[in-house]
Amino acid sequence: MTKPIPRIVTGETLGQVDASQVPRFAGAPTFARLPRIDEVKSADIAVIGMPFDAGASFRSGARFGPSHIREASRLLRPYNPAQDAYPFELAQVVDAGDLNLNTYDILETLATIEAGITEILNFGAKPMTLGGDHTIALPILRALHKKFGPIAVIHFDAHLDTWDTYYGAPYTHGTPFRRAAEEGLLDLESCLHVGIRGPLYSKQDLTDDATFGFQIIRTEDFDDLGTEAIIAKMLRRVAGKPVYVSIDVDVMDPAFAPGTGTPEAGGLSSRELLRLVRALDATNLLGADIVEVSPPYDHAQITALAACHLAYDLITTMAKATAAAKKA
Amino acid sequence: MTKPIPRIVTGETLGQVDASQVPRFAGAPTFARLPRIDEVKSADIAVIGMPFDAGASFRSGARFGPSHIREASRLLRPYNPAQDAYPFELAQVVDAGDLNLNTYDILETLATIEAGITEILNFGAKPMTLGGDHTIALPILRALHKKFGPIAVIHFDAHLDTWDTYYGAPYTHGTPFRRAAEEGLLDLESCLHVGIRGPLYSKQDLTDDATFGFQIIRTEDFDDLGTEAIIAKMLRRVAGKPVYVSIDVDVMDPAFAPGTGTPEAGGLSSRELLRLVRALDATNLLGADIVEVSPPYDHAQITALAACHLAYDLITTMAKATAAAKKA
Amino acid sequence: MTKPIPRIVTGETLGQVDASQVPRFAGAPTFARLPRIDEVKSADIAVIGMPFDAGASFRSGARFGPSHIREASRLLRPYNPAQDAYPFELAQVVDAGDLNLNTYDILETLATIEAGITEILNFGAKPMTLGGDHTIALPILRALHKKFGPIAVIHFDAHLDTWDTYYGAPYTHGTPFRRAAEEGLLDLESCLHVGIRGPLYSKQDLTDDATFGFQIIRTEDFDDLGTEAIIAKMLRRVAGKPVYVSIDVDVMDPAFAPGTGTPEAGGLSSRELLRLVRALDATNLLGADIVEVSPPYDHAQITALAACHLAYDLITTMAKATAAAKKA
Amino acid sequence: MTKPIPRIVTGETLGQVDASQVPRFAGAPTFARLPRIDEVKSADIAVIGMPFDAGASFRSGARFGPSHIREASRLLRPYNPAQDAYPFELAQVVDAGDLNLNTYDILETLATIEAGITEILNFGAKPMTLGGDHTIALPILRALHKKFGPIAVIHFDAHLDTWDTYYGAPYTHGTPFRRAAEEGLLDLESCLHVGIRGPLYSKQDLTDDATFGFQIIRTEDFDDLGTEAIIAKMLRRVAGKPVYVSIDVDVMDPAFAPGTGTPEAGGLSSRELLRLVRALDATNLLGADIVEVSPPYDHAQITALAACHLAYDLITTMAKATAAAKKA
Amino acid sequence: MTKPIPRIVTGETLGQVDASQVPRFAGAPTFARLPRIDEVKSADIAVIGMPFDAGASFRSGARFGPSHIREASRLLRPYNPAQDAYPFELAQVVDAGDLNLNTYDILETLATIEAGITEILNFGAKPMTLGGDHTIALPILRALHKKFGPIAVIHFDAHLDTWDTYYGAPYTHGTPFRRAAEEGLLDLESCLHVGIRGPLYSKQDLTDDATFGFQIIRTEDFDDLGTEAIIAKMLRRVAGKPVYVSIDVDVMDPAFAPGTGTPEAGGLSSRELLRLVRALDATNLLGADIVEVSPPYDHAQITALAACHLAYDLITTMAKATAAAKKA
Amino acid sequence: MTKPIPRIVTGETLGQVDASQVPRFAGAPTFARLPRIDEVKSADIAVIGMPFDAGASFRSGARFGPSHIREASRLLRPYNPAQDAYPFELAQVVDAGDLNLNTYDILETLATIEAGITEILNFGAKPMTLGGDHTIALPILRALHKKFGPIAVIHFDAHLDTWDTYYGAPYTHGTPFRRAAEEGLLDLESCLHVGIRGPLYSKQDLTDDATFGFQIIRTEDFDDLGTEAIIAKMLRRVAGKPVYVSIDVDVMDPAFAPGTGTPEAGGLSSRELLRLVRALDATNLLGADIVEVSPPYDHAQITALAACHLAYDLITTMAKATAAAKKA
Repeated sequence: MTKPIPRIVTGETLGQVDASQVPRFAGAPTFARLPRIDEVKSADIAVIGMPFDAGASFRSGARFGPSHIREASRLLRPYNPAQDAYPFELAQVVDAGDLNLNTYDILETLATIEAGITEILNFGAKPMTLGGDHTIALPILRALHKKFGPIAVIHFDAHLDTWDTYYGAPYTHGTPFRRAAEEGLLDLESCLHVGIRGPLYSKQDLTDDATFGFQIIRTEDFDDLGTEAIIAKMLRRVAGKPVYVSIDVDVMDPAFAPGTGTPEAGGLSSRELLRLVRALDATNLLGADIVEVSPPYDHAQITALAACHLAYDLITTMAKATAAAKKA
Repeated sequence: MTKPIPRIVTGETLGQVDASQVPRFAGAPTFARLPRIDEVKSADIAVIGMPFDAGASFRSGARFGPSHIREASRLLRPYNPAQDAYPFELAQVVDAGDLNLNTYDILETLATIEAGITEILNFGAKPMTLGGDHTIALPILRALHKKFGPIAVIHFDAHLDTWDTYYGAPYTHGTPFRRAAEEGLLDLESCLHVGIRGPLYSKQDLTDDATFGFQIIRTEDFDDLGTEAIIAKMLRRVAGKPVYVSIDVDVMDPAFAPGTGTPEAGGLSSRELLRLVRALDATNLLGADIVEVSPPYDHAQITALAACHLAYDLITTMAKATAAAKKA
Repeated sequence: MTKPIPRIVTGETLGQVDASQVPRFAGAPTFARLPRIDEVKSADIAVIGMPFDAGASFRSGARFGPSHIREASRLLRPYNPAQDAYPFELAQVVDAGDLNLNTYDILETLATIEAGITEILNFGAKPMTLGGDHTIALPILRALHKKFGPIAVIHFDAHLDTWDTYYGAPYTHGTPFRRAAEEGLLDLESCLHVGIRGPLYSKQDLTDDATFGFQIIRTEDFDDLGTEAIIAKMLRRVAGKPVYVSIDVDVMDPAFAPGTGTPEAGGLSSRELLRLVRALDATNLLGADIVEVSPPYDHAQITALAACHLAYDLITTMAKATAAAKKA
Repeated sequence: MTKPIPRIVTGETLGQVDASQVPRFAGAPTFARLPRIDEVKSADIAVIGMPFDAGASFRSGARFGPSHIREASRLLRPYNPAQDAYPFELAQVVDAGDLNLNTYDILETLATIEAGITEILNFGAKPMTLGGDHTIALPILRALHKKFGPIAVIHFDAHLDTWDTYYGAPYTHGTPFRRAAEEGLLDLESCLHVGIRGPLYSKQDLTDDATFGFQIIRTEDFDDLGTEAIIAKMLRRVAGKPVYVSIDVDVMDPAFAPGTGTPEAGGLSSRELLRLVRALDATNLLGADIVEVSPPYDHAQITALAACHLAYDLITTMAKATAAAKKA
Repeated sequence: MTKPIPRIVTGETLGQVDASQVPRFAGAPTFARLPRIDEVKSADIAVIGMPFDAGASFRSGARFGPSHIREASRLLRPYNPAQDAYPFELAQVVDAGDLNLNTYDILETLATIEAGITEILNFGAKPMTLGGDHTIALPILRALHKKFGPIAVIHFDAHLDTWDTYYGAPYTHGTPFRRAAEEGLLDLESCLHVGIRGPLYSKQDLTDDATFGFQIIRTEDFDDLGTEAIIAKMLRRVAGKPVYVSIDVDVMDPAFAPGTGTPEAGGLSSRELLRLVRALDATNLLGADIVEVSPPYDHAQITALAACHLAYDLITTMAKATAAAKKA
Repeated sequence: MTKPIPRIVTGETLGQVDASQVPRFAGAPTFARLPRIDEVKSADIAVIGMPFDAGASFRSGARFGPSHIREASRLLRPYNPAQDAYPFELAQVVDAGDLNLNTYDILETLATIEAGITEILNFGAKPMTLGGDHTIALPILRALHKKFGPIAVIHFDAHLDTWDTYYGAPYTHGTPFRRAAEEGLLDLESCLHVGIRGPLYSKQDLTDDATFGFQIIRTEDFDDLGTEAIIAKMLRRVAGKPVYVSIDVDVMDPAFAPGTGTPEAGGLSSRELLRLVRALDATNLLGADIVEVSPPYDHAQITALAACHLAYDLITTMAKATAAAKKA
């Protein structure tokens, strides 16, 4: 039985469920109501969920993050006026579902993620990951590094995430970028943290962090320098490099992202963060993640709405690059 | 790419995602993590969502009911000890997705539902519907009646739902069973309401209701007669008849079903209701619905958990009948 | 301008806004959408709010109780099948609004309440009070006692409320019935607490309590004796006496009444409590209160729904007595 | 009985309940605790509720918006320092209650609203409407147009609301301003949207929109141009025209307005929006609405507080014009 | 500085902060406002928190369980009328704080717990543990077994918790009692599960479970047999044996325990569960735990209130045994 | 028994529980997991809770504020990069617990607070108070005045809090600064309110306020003047004076501080407020308070997170002064 679901089809891309025909509250919650990966022959960008929070050191709950973000993403529409582009026409974007991660075994999880991202890359797609806690960034970088060499990471977060160990554990949500640096995955001249704020364990954290190739843009800098200056600084830092973007939603203030695991007062607004992300237009984006959405602490999808809009703009940027590459 | 999802396969049935291999918080939220209808060749029982609440007269929100119930149904497991059966082995159960209903046009919605249920019946499956508001019961009965003739309805609800019109509207969540009776869809000797309570517009409501073929079992009767006597009465009423079960979650007390549109204090517990539903074992069940789950008023999935367990037990009953029929 | 609001008018009573003409979510939230006291010439029963919680010793918030209960009461309908009566036809029931109580001065508040209730009694009406914390019971009893002499109180509560002082304060939500006894307001042979449970400060609490004329029915007794036996005991205790009913919603379990100030696990269900209240039919009811509804701790109006249904049944009982008296 | 409620009376106006005599949590929740329309002989400004959400395409719930906003408005006080004015002295402001709208019939609802607003205008008052979903703007504009001719609309919203149809329905919350333009209700040189953001269905939406007389100020423009420049642009656009203001609360970020139906990340703060609204001082304001407050998604009245403050400032602006006109 | 906190001192016991002198919302939230272990020389019963949820297979959050239960326990009072005893006079009860558990290392956590409980036993106290997920029961049983030999476990739970592994992990919240049986910690003739319900992975689960020494009392049995018969069965099963009680709060219905990780519809009420626990009076109780309270899913402390009352009654039972032993 | 809790010990200060050894969700919730006052010999700064809300005129609940803020403060770490300082090394900071305040007697409470603060001052510590409603500021100022003479108060609040009486009550949360001025506690040339906004009772409020020594910086000024200019103005006002800082969290917008008693739309962000507070570095800070955190209206600790970060920065400022004084 089952009639075909009315979708927006443009050229060779299979797009969203057509919201003019099917209410947005109906049907399966794939990201932005895009096709599943098994419904297409090829894909340029793959949204993939990583339901995992065993790396979290305070509030847990991010294991339910991917399905929560997908539910909120029902509202996304085809045309992105902020970037003047139709992302789902410019590129074939799909929902690749969730990776099957072992909540009881971080090492196995790291291996599964690395393999999963490698598979997506081999399929020809760029990964747009929905976390899960920040532990997942490390194996993603491992997979990207195998294919692209050292990577410039733009890391939006309240926290450095370059700590060494927690209670002896080397692989947690507080350590991915130290491990990545130690493993040689990062371009040591080109990484930066944006939105850092809040108390640290030690001033040494900052010293250590610098050795891993990170420049720091603090939340306070937004008030001192203005957003445009920060965008310029950010783009200068990664200019000409293959870039990976990693967004911890706690870079936003708890008012804009209550549903997260390690909130810090005094953060960015969703509008500031979207502005930064949209400025990435000219960069060579290899992929991106949005992590640390913890649904049990969210309300009325405030956090998930910001997260899915961020993913939407990151996808748009990647789609524009895809289209440009195809044309070239 | 995409590896096959590890599923429980038994004989000819394609079952749930194997929870021993994939955490229950991972993957797409089909009902009970069962296969989609397009993944099977045939089906015995089809879970179908009806995201619609334009028939609601007080709190709305049931349009998000189907996806909310599916999220909660991730916890369901293969073996039902209460009925000593493996429902997803006994029958091929699938998730048929949501019907595409027009929130602005009740009449069109009635037609779409009738067509959708007819299609499911023609596919050889029994419908297990997730509402949506109670308006949807009418077109389901229309479709069933076309195929099976007059139907004995067991209607669990705090309310009679046999009112005539609201503000001139004949098709709302308060009127499906009056319309059904007027259209000759009901077996006038065999219907009953279970769990009626709360204030009415008029004593005449009761008189009218009786003419539509309904016997009434009030919530108070549970205390006076005991559950066993009520089960006996219920089974006697529908004995030998083709039966349709319609459950409005407001038959439960607001403590057990806060997420609903027209709550009434003093209702059944989820345990009492499950007991009644499991007692339907011997009946000739044509299909069932669970309606009026309104997610914005739910908390920690209390209502959705009860709803998905009720669906699970109704499916088990239908699956046992399916298996018996196949054997015979 | 302003057209008349369509109301149900029966004989001489001005009833609810007609829900067949005006949706229940529209219009001003008087109790049950009944007329305001200034819209009628006389009244038999007056619903009156007492927004006050300065007597609360743990969670506060009950100052918002009256408006919260009224919002939930929009759902109440004209005919009460549990008592087979139309309460708003049998008697003129009105919403007398809120008393203007001084949150900073308990003694002034006690005086204001006593005067307010006296005024209602002089107006010819019985008071159905919506609290507010339990402190308010004392001045209500003072006003009733002036008119009717010693009163038999049926007190539904998890707590005795016959403590002496808190931190030196004699008039709080934990002391109204001790004060009432000391002041000679109670019929010392005829009072009883129903639903007592949870830890006490001392075994002496029970001894003291007995001297104030109270018999105790514990929650555990419901399981040991059954509800019918308890009803019989309750009716026997107050037989032939003028009765006042005071319901602290914490007599219900936190599942049925989360929105309250001093919750205790293991309480009554709303169904049990409604059954008890409806059994009061034969008593000579002088008035009643429902107290300790604390909206900031409620969810989806669970507590308020139970509270307004209890008020509805108490009103029905009083209305039946009113009608009987008029006939006689 | 019933003593008069202590009110602030100034010259000929009957003002708020006097908060120095009655706690703000006590008494009936009319808007800002102002008198009901039936308590005055004439009124300059009438607050009117439109409990209706059948035009909503995603989350519903706005049918409870009017009573939710009124509850939050208990906090409003007599003197508005931001505009240096006593709005309720300058003009007689009243609460006209709710219109009685048919949730099952959009066309009937449109007619009822048009008639209701016409009645308010004939009563000599300007309408300050509390929604309800945005569908209600169309019939308000119809009524205003009959009296004042083509109208300049300042429309604060994340969305254009100039779509054509949804699932064949021409009158929904996404279409009022297209319908208004088609019907000739708008001044085609003078309308503007403020706060537009988020994905669109198509770039064509923008082209279509321009033909209906709307200029667009995007949320991003606030960062690029600054608020003062936007205010200047806004005032220039409507200079000398009769103006109607329509505020969809989703123009604010979900952090400031979680309780709404179609949220978009990256919006205005309540402070920015209040600044814009207060800048309307010099305009010829015919009336205003605040719509799409959906209480089941609100928390701690965050959204309702913003909504009632916006209404308060709009009323102040209208009251100043009233006073100026009376003087003249 | 710091004046002594006014405490109830009785004979040799240091009791609760005196609620007649200090409001219950003031001061540090030790369990029941009892003294810390470092404030006493010896203790008979030690309440100990185990903030750990890395063993949870579905919803996490129980790591915040201990502090959440302690907050709710502020309401507990000195005299327990249900057992006619003053638990904190009969025995010295203390709050031993939380164990310091490694969220990233289950094996280390098991060792830490075993050592911690051993230390408590060596201190002469019985452990009353606040979880944390159910994984913690295994190391507690190990410590008890070292001292007392094979143990009769009364296990209140919706689930058997005798599964083998999840995703290869042997030590999780679904396996403690299988591991305990395999390690010879259990008295194979005397264990029982109470409150089992909900779907299972396989019928084999029941067969396996029986070999570990467990008798099963299903939730349905409460309706069939009545609570008294179940109590008799339970007491018969453990008669004369050293008993350990382990309560997973999901044995209660989600209405009574929404804040938990793996909820199942149709469970016990808090009143039923308290009745069972109070019936343990005559048993030789070695210790007890209450686990799986997940605060992010709780509302108004519903779950925590039930949990702390259960702990209170378990402590009372242990205290009575302590007092009896001292006397003897 | 009980091993010592691993703490950070630096020179002579006893610091936080070491988060590298004990997870932040474990252990007793003293502020920032600092030592209790009875664990140290001397202290430079004492965090003290004042669980009291009987002075609140609208929403209550602040009585639970201290424990709520402490729970959120578990996340605070040792190094404050915003001020480049280790506050808990520079000074001995302790948690002095809660004062024991009488919820039924404001006058007694005022006396208890004055005595408690005096005791802290005599102990050699500066008070960092966690409220509680704003009534508590008056007795704190009385104690400070006795020791330091007239005080310059920087008062962050949406409201002036210089009203005269409410319903005849002179000591409430709306009056502390009028009483303080009348009693001569304030330096009449040096006080200021920051963040004032929202409707007032009367324009006279502003006139009165000026006579009490307050300059007013309105929220609107932040947009007109910019934050830097406001900081300069603020520092100029208090230059060279002994300063007390009093922060009502409602100075923030309801999006950033939903959990409060008298919210006003259009407020500061937590980032703006933190910037202002950090600018106090050069001032001679005698102590500070953070008040009006009302937990029942908070969500996901949004308000408490802002409150504990504000306290952390105030403590840092005081600790730097302490260290400087010790050096000098």
